[in-house]
Amino acid sequence: MPQLLRVQNFNISSDGIAAGEDQTLENPFGLAIDPGVLFSWAGATASWPNRTDPGGSRGLDDYLTRDFRNNIGAEIMGRNKFGPQRGPWESEEWKGWWGEEPPFRTPVFVWTHHPRPSFTLSDTTFHFVGGEPAEVLARAKEAADGKDVRLGGGVRTIREFLDADLVDTLHVAVSPVKLGTGLKLWESPEELSDRFHVDVVPSPSGVTHHLFWRK
Amino acid sequence: MPQLLRVQNFNISSDGIAAGEDQTLENPFGLAIDPGVLFSWAGATASWPNRTDPGGSRGLDDYLTRDFRNNIGAEIMGRNKFGPQRGPWESEEWKGWWGEEPPFRTPVFVWTHHPRPSFTLSDTTFHFVGGEPAEVLARAKEAADGKDVRLGGGVRTIREFLDADLVDTLHVAVSPVKLGTGLKLWESPEELSDRFHVDVVPSPSGVTHHLFWRK
Repeated sequence: MPQLLRVQNFNISSDGIAAGEDQTLENPFGLAIDPGVLFSWAGATASWPNRTDPGGSRGLDDYLTRDFRNNIGAEIMGRNKFGPQRGPWESEEWKGWWGEEPPFRTPVFVWTHHPRPSFTLSDTTFHFVGGEPAEVLARAKEAADGKDVRLGGGVRTIREFLDADLVDTLHVAVSPVKLGTGLKLWESPEELSDRFHVDVVPSPSGVTHHLFWRK
Repeated sequence: MPQLLRVQNFNISSDGIAAGEDQTLENPFGLAIDPGVLFSWAGATASWPNRTDPGGSRGLDDYLTRDFRNNIGAEIMGRNKFGPQRGPWESEEWKGWWGEEPPFRTPVFVWTHHPRPSFTLSDTTFHFVGGEPAEVLARAKEAADGKDVRLGGGVRTIREFLDADLVDTLHVAVSPVKLGTGLKLWESPEELSDRFHVDVVPSPSGVTHHLFWRK
């Protein structure tokens, strides 16, 4: 089986926006609205990793949510997904947004120019790596032990890996809300149609799943 | 996490038929047509267990196909899914339709009145068990080691477990072909609407996925 680089459960607005420009500690997505509006389809599913109560739907949206860990052996994320800091690390206190039990449970490669020692929280080890996208991917594939690698975002990171033509599949969930300004994944999904097949699947929840795979 | 009983990738015609009445060694589904017509949507996906060449689609149909093993720790199947024999076992030569590498890779409980010793092929162990559906499910759950149990079919087995109200989720793929006569799962999916939520999801491949979960 080939090792794929997969974008999964990446959520954008109907006008293509994934995040705002002004991320802060209090506002990880930098959006003027509650980002829960974008993610509500996932939060309603039985397999949502942060679910604390029983129940939840087990239809189409749940298949997409529960695939999050399926055959994934490592994640690559941009530094802005890891935290709100910019520039050199002033301290090593910050260990991500996810508390003592990050949902990744694999090695995670945080893509940054600024070195920092690796550390482990529960089943997740964070490494801090620079270099070209292809170099980062090579390290992640080696760590993934034959499994696929998830490209976790944010939007700039996904765009750079797309520009380098390293992405094999993308699941982009388009929520029925317009945001107006922010960091865009695309102007239109058509931008990927030269290199990818796509299934466009409207869910009863109101979100439209776009499932791309390489031609 | 509760242990679920899940029907996955169960394929029927647009008139509800899963199999013919006259199963034989040469015709496992007992259908007058090539059963490949029902299953072609799954065979086209990258994750189809019997795929021998690289390639295949990675859109909606692939999510459903690749969920086959996701968090499954055991399977229950009817005797007619296991083989064409009826009545007491005349020999123990028959070891299923799947050759030396059955795709299950978990304990499999074959539901039959006719006892036979367990045996193992590669990563799959087949056990032969009688009793009420609830008893069979209790044994499968114990063997599944905390994971879910797949209810593999055939159609009579699924109907009996539905009648006993033991099924938690069902994925039924309805193919755009009429068969006319045979063993029916339902006259209409409405029959399940008193007990189950359902997402009805048309795939670009032409099949319509019905995803049921318990109310």
